[in-house]
Amino acid sequence: MFKRFRGAVAAKEMLLDRCLPIQRTALLPNVQAAGRVLSQDIASPVNLPGFDRAAMDGFAVRSLDTRGAKPNAPVFLDNFRPVRTGMPVPGCYDAVVMLEDSRKRDTNLEITAQLHAYKNISPIGEDIRQGETVFSQGHTLRPPDVAMLSALGIDEVQVYEKPKVVIIPTGGELVAIGARALASGEAYEINGLMARLYAEKWGALAEKREIVPDDEGLIREAISCNIDADMIIIIGGTSVGEKDYAPRVLEEMGELFVHGVRLQPGKPTAFGLVAGKIVVCLPGYPVAALSDLYLFVRPALQKMGSRSDIQPKVSARLARKIPSRPGYLSMVRVALRGEQAEPIMISGAGILSSVARADGFVLVAEEREGIEEGETVEVMLFE
Amino acid sequence: MFKRFRGAVAAKEMLLDRCLPIQRTALLPNVQAAGRVLSQDIASPVNLPGFDRAAMDGFAVRSLDTRGAKPNAPVFLDNFRPVRTGMPVPGCYDAVVMLEDSRKRDTNLEITAQLHAYKNISPIGEDIRQGETVFSQGHTLRPPDVAMLSALGIDEVQVYEKPKVVIIPTGGELVAIGARALASGEAYEINGLMARLYAEKWGALAEKREIVPDDEGLIREAISCNIDADMIIIIGGTSVGEKDYAPRVLEEMGELFVHGVRLQPGKPTAFGLVAGKIVVCLPGYPVAALSDLYLFVRPALQKMGSRSDIQPKVSARLARKIPSRPGYLSMVRVALRGEQAEPIMISGAGILSSVARADGFVLVAEEREGIEEGETVEVMLFE
Repeated sequence: MFKRFRGAVAAKEMLLDRCLPIQRTALLPNVQAAGRVLSQDIASPVNLPGFDRAAMDGFAVRSLDTRGAKPNAPVFLDNFRPVRTGMPVPGCYDAVVMLEDSRKRDTNLEITAQLHAYKNISPIGEDIRQGETVFSQGHTLRPPDVAMLSALGIDEVQVYEKPKVVIIPTGGELVAIGARALASGEAYEINGLMARLYAEKWGALAEKREIVPDDEGLIREAISCNIDADMIIIIGGTSVGEKDYAPRVLEEMGELFVHGVRLQPGKPTAFGLVAGKIVVCLPGYPVAALSDLYLFVRPALQKMGSRSDIQPKVSARLARKIPSRPGYLSMVRVALRGEQAEPIMISGAGILSSVARADGFVLVAEEREGIEEGETVEVMLFE
Repeated sequence: MFKRFRGAVAAKEMLLDRCLPIQRTALLPNVQAAGRVLSQDIASPVNLPGFDRAAMDGFAVRSLDTRGAKPNAPVFLDNFRPVRTGMPVPGCYDAVVMLEDSRKRDTNLEITAQLHAYKNISPIGEDIRQGETVFSQGHTLRPPDVAMLSALGIDEVQVYEKPKVVIIPTGGELVAIGARALASGEAYEINGLMARLYAEKWGALAEKREIVPDDEGLIREAISCNIDADMIIIIGGTSVGEKDYAPRVLEEMGELFVHGVRLQPGKPTAFGLVAGKIVVCLPGYPVAALSDLYLFVRPALQKMGSRSDIQPKVSARLARKIPSRPGYLSMVRVALRGEQAEPIMISGAGILSSVARADGFVLVAEEREGIEEGETVEVMLFE
């Protein structure tokens, strides 16, 4: 029997309560900082533009000289200077007349429009003033933000370090991918690879360790050896059978605060805290592991990495009724066909092809018993 | 005057008509193929599971032996074998009885449930049958898909090569990022960096070349030298001024099929075809360049890379009216405040801070004149 059996929402809250944002920082060249999260406010060291900048191709003029100019009453100027978009406007001028409103006549300039001061000029500091906060702590740098930093002459920025995740697959029947052909009863260890790829996508630095056999002492040792990580993910041996050592090991080494979750698939899940570090135990069945990765590991890594990356999703109408187990949060794989979401009814948590055929998943809340055909649902897309 | 002035939608269609999906392929270790697009169907070389697999911890039994078993009428078996979840079921057995429905009594097993054949067994090939198509050509591999390939013992897959994009910034006033302090009238070349980061995010292999001065011959040479790329992006000098050489060069070297787009910001945009290669000319103003990157370069790279990556977006209510220029497609930057989208009204295409403050953008269709306060809009999030 599961001794710390929780609802899925409660389990997630308990996990997130214990996840702390990483405070370690790194100084990165800004061209390498795209996608990273700032650990400090950024104030501009300069004005942008750093000079009065022509916003049009044309002629720099003194606005006072253009008074009264109209198409049918042109004004002729002696003082003017040709300028191109983006160029500085020489100090004695305060406006730029567009090519369409002007014509060069020998040494004179004929103007057919009256200009106010700073017409067609981006004044110094218009975009950013020196000292102004450009980005705040916690902001995730996007490509134009990196470009902006470069425009301001900022070459390095301080960002949060990525959470460090160590993944420990367990199971005597498992063989490392590509190591050798399988004997009967063996399987390649694929959950560790899936967890590593997702952890990296979700902003972590992830490392996968060697497969640990079903041995209590070796599982304990694997946790101890990797306790410098911010999160340890153990895969397999998470249920309540004789050889399901991981939850017992957590209980001995620290706190086991969740064991068993009302989540389908994904019931045999455990969360613990060992020496202040989060340990997540995922079931060995790949679809259940995937379910846990999305529902628990993703938000945990987002919080630890100070991120809030959007989960891509679309609305669709259910092509068929989804049944679900009352009291359980259900993660139902669906394939999208145009505006319709077709549930993939194979329920086995070991059936990887149900994910291969799915575009995403629909969550059925604990208090609901399924969702009716035709209802509009949010489909979370598998990234 | 723009000689090939087009509506934004028409310009995009003309561009996409001329973009061809890259047909070159590469063979990659599957663990490096996450996020890549398959160039061939994948058929399974094996059955998965490769054996009749226990789906529960319990005892392997012969289903016929369990006939009539009930809680109040147990049946006692001589032939049985303990099995754990995931293990092979020995050949002479055809069902697995759960621990809850069985009790070991000396050499006998007491059973309190009748089982049909294959109860609690995943039969060989249940997940995937040998020869079955697992993924089709054009599928983008996600982490569970990579895991699936590994489960089938497939170590390498053939994927489409990424489109090769070369970015050529032009402009005599530009200084390479970090090269030296700026003199008056100079600016750091930041659009090339932004374009490179986005092109990579959108699935391309992107390289940025050195800044080319405003010189017709040098621009021509830069195109010729990089004509092995799938797409050339030239930045700056795209308008109709005396020194806007890029569109003229395209006309001479090949076909200039768009020059000028009813897009705000982003009007001085040009598309050409030189020796069968797409050449995109982006305006030098960074907000206009960004507008073009999202509206034209992103879909072009998606098509060339056989991708259809979801553009992250959210719905929000406009906090204020957006004005727009009739006949033009407008890209209006907005900041999200809860459920509301606050338009950032600074219209200058040179004002980078308007992007720094924005979470995304709203498109106002060509036929509309702005969008009213309170209307629900789709906000495309800046990635």
